[in-house]
Amino acid sequence: MERTLIGELSSKIGQEVLIQGWVSVRRDQGKMVFFDFRDRSGSVQGVVLPASEAMTTAKELRAEYVVSVEAKVNKRPEKNVKADVQNGDIELEVTGITLLSVAEVPFELGTEVNLDTYLDHMPFTLRSEKAKQIFKVQEAIIEGFREGMKSQDFTEFQAPALVGGDAEGGAAAFEVEYYYEKKAFLATSPQFYKQIMVGAYERVFTTPKVFRGEKHATTRHLSEYSSLDFEMGFIKDHTDVMAALEHTMRLIVEKTGVADVLLPEKIPVLKLREAQKLLGVAEDPDLEPEHERALCEWAKKEHNSDFVFVTHYPVSKRPFYTYEDEQDPGFTKSFDLLFRGLEITTGGQRVHNHDELIERMKKKGLNPELFSYYLEAFKVGMPPHGGSATGLERFTARLLNLPNVKEATLFPRDLNRIDTLLSTDK
Amino acid sequence: MERTLIGELSSKIGQEVLIQGWVSVRRDQGKMVFFDFRDRSGSVQGVVLPASEAMTTAKELRAEYVVSVEAKVNKRPEKNVKADVQNGDIELEVTGITLLSVAEVPFELGTEVNLDTYLDHMPFTLRSEKAKQIFKVQEAIIEGFREGMKSQDFTEFQAPALVGGDAEGGAAAFEVEYYYEKKAFLATSPQFYKQIMVGAYERVFTTPKVFRGEKHATTRHLSEYSSLDFEMGFIKDHTDVMAALEHTMRLIVEKTGVADVLLPEKIPVLKLREAQKLLGVAEDPDLEPEHERALCEWAKKEHNSDFVFVTHYPVSKRPFYTYEDEQDPGFTKSFDLLFRGLEITTGGQRVHNHDELIERMKKKGLNPELFSYYLEAFKVGMPPHGGSATGLERFTARLLNLPNVKEATLFPRDLNRIDTLLSTDK
Repeated sequence: MERTLIGELSSKIGQEVLIQGWVSVRRDQGKMVFFDFRDRSGSVQGVVLPASEAMTTAKELRAEYVVSVEAKVNKRPEKNVKADVQNGDIELEVTGITLLSVAEVPFELGTEVNLDTYLDHMPFTLRSEKAKQIFKVQEAIIEGFREGMKSQDFTEFQAPALVGGDAEGGAAAFEVEYYYEKKAFLATSPQFYKQIMVGAYERVFTTPKVFRGEKHATTRHLSEYSSLDFEMGFIKDHTDVMAALEHTMRLIVEKTGVADVLLPEKIPVLKLREAQKLLGVAEDPDLEPEHERALCEWAKKEHNSDFVFVTHYPVSKRPFYTYEDEQDPGFTKSFDLLFRGLEITTGGQRVHNHDELIERMKKKGLNPELFSYYLEAFKVGMPPHGGSATGLERFTARLLNLPNVKEATLFPRDLNRIDTLLSTDK
Repeated sequence: MERTLIGELSSKIGQEVLIQGWVSVRRDQGKMVFFDFRDRSGSVQGVVLPASEAMTTAKELRAEYVVSVEAKVNKRPEKNVKADVQNGDIELEVTGITLLSVAEVPFELGTEVNLDTYLDHMPFTLRSEKAKQIFKVQEAIIEGFREGMKSQDFTEFQAPALVGGDAEGGAAAFEVEYYYEKKAFLATSPQFYKQIMVGAYERVFTTPKVFRGEKHATTRHLSEYSSLDFEMGFIKDHTDVMAALEHTMRLIVEKTGVADVLLPEKIPVLKLREAQKLLGVAEDPDLEPEHERALCEWAKKEHNSDFVFVTHYPVSKRPFYTYEDEQDPGFTKSFDLLFRGLEITTGGQRVHNHDELIERMKKKGLNPELFSYYLEAFKVGMPPHGGSATGLERFTARLLNLPNVKEATLFPRDLNRIDTLLSTDK
């Protein structure tokens, strides 16, 4: 018999079906055994009646056993219908069970456990409805991002993870043993590559893994995360980038189906200095986490928005390629996007003039010779351009109000956590 | 004035427009200057007439200069229409030019150069129509892959690149300096993670970067490449996996628009031993590259197919998790997919029984304790499952008949090649 998905059962009333999935719950009432079965499409209740040939196997089954079940789809009597439950109007009368895999669980699925235990048992805890839902939302975010960019004529590309040299001499990059004692590093961002790509395609996006050696354990940092990056040429200034991002954000929020997001017609925009004045705090080159939260409170109250743009960070606090605002010297055409108390996106206009870029590198103490590959893109003619980068896991976490970004990361890596699963040819 | 894309000019005849893009070619005829301009949507010819105010700037322009151009869109006289050229029926009469960036090119764009020079100058050579086309096709492949999997109810996930331990003790994995002298490694495949994900979502796919320390320079190996991976539960055997792959391949080929691909109703399938018999070579645990080519010649001639499946590789040549065929002991329910002379996909059914998996590890000399994270997915009940992995760059290269896989890789990394572009906060 062909397999029927559990989600399709309600159109099969009166028919014999074969379902395949997991035992979620078994309730042994002695003469009869009740089950909740689940597969990728949903769950359903089944009953093994006293005379059933399946009774012997039914008695052996436990939570998470994997089974093939032959059954008849019965309509429940009106008084027993559970209106608020998937398949609450039907019940399977089990006629045969084939055991595909036994199982032994560390604790009951869905049990509230602390985060470390939850993550240690991810191959199991991932099966809970809550966990599965988190990564379905994450899938929708990344899909929404791609659709949003494609709808604005962006080309997708695959950014490299391995880079050859530590041009900045910084501490945040992980070092890799490359060939024959040569060193390589893990990319901390696709920034330079997406700028190079602008020279060919004008508008590009990429969603690579990036890597940061963050020597502090917080609820918002990860050693490996997914970055939703885009870069676009022929812009007027950073506001074109913000508009492209805002358009995409709207599409993403819609796509996730998360209902309680406050996203007004226009996301409020403040200069960093205006934000600090508003909060009554001193002018400072950056926002402290508690100021990010306070600013989001303000945006929610005053503009009914979960999002707020902060622009014009000082030249000193932004990378060398950030465009300085001619109208506001010392400050850049850059922005952060805050969402529900947390910075999720950084972006801005970039320097596109080759010689100015070299000057800016020198001012930051960088050696332009180490950037010759990057600089070639500018030497051969680069348009005014800009872009942004959004942290997928941070966005997911805030969208679902998860307190720790690790809950929005399938296999989180941080200072203390990494698992040992290298693939093998053996 | 709002920017008009070059691809939209033919609907603007008689109008004043603003275009933005690069100078592809400048032909100075003394009194008049002719240009080919291009942007992301195409190219068009422009002329600066003797009396034009734009003449001074026009004389300064060179190839790859970035410009904003104001012009009138004129219809060409019938006799001058170039039917085979984009915008061959119109010509721009240039009235104003604003220079956005100067440029200095290492050689004329599109010049035939050797592969090393081509790759050394990728930030420039990428702008050629040929190169741009390669990565548009690659984009279509990855999109087609996602659509093919989504259409079969697969869930996308983000596989990790950093893994904690070298469970196999193999040589192919790059070592990473993790925190405080701890070692980590770069994933050589998302294999174990996609199997874990089957326990939650049944059907999953992922398109991560994977990393192989290949100490030989060939036309088909890369140190970093994109892997198109999927894994599915509740299969009958490996043929279900092959069917899912074939379905997706058909969608991909269609999506790329590459016209000369031979993909019959059903891709031919041979056991490895049958293939060797057919080729008149000795039974061997694997196919040599020249045998892969010969077998593809056969498939083309006999089945009008650029693709051929080879199944049943011996247990000794496949990883420990490969399912042994009960009907053909010593051989596995595994397959390779060959395309135009090259293996592009590897897949098969996996062992899903926890205890058998441990036995198979031990037989290969692996320590099951190092795989405890992976094994938990099996301990808590795993359905029969299987999947496959396709190399994105290899597939792209064969699809476009490029002799070297590096031509189908944006920023190729190998034994000798890696660039130095780490991003920076400075």
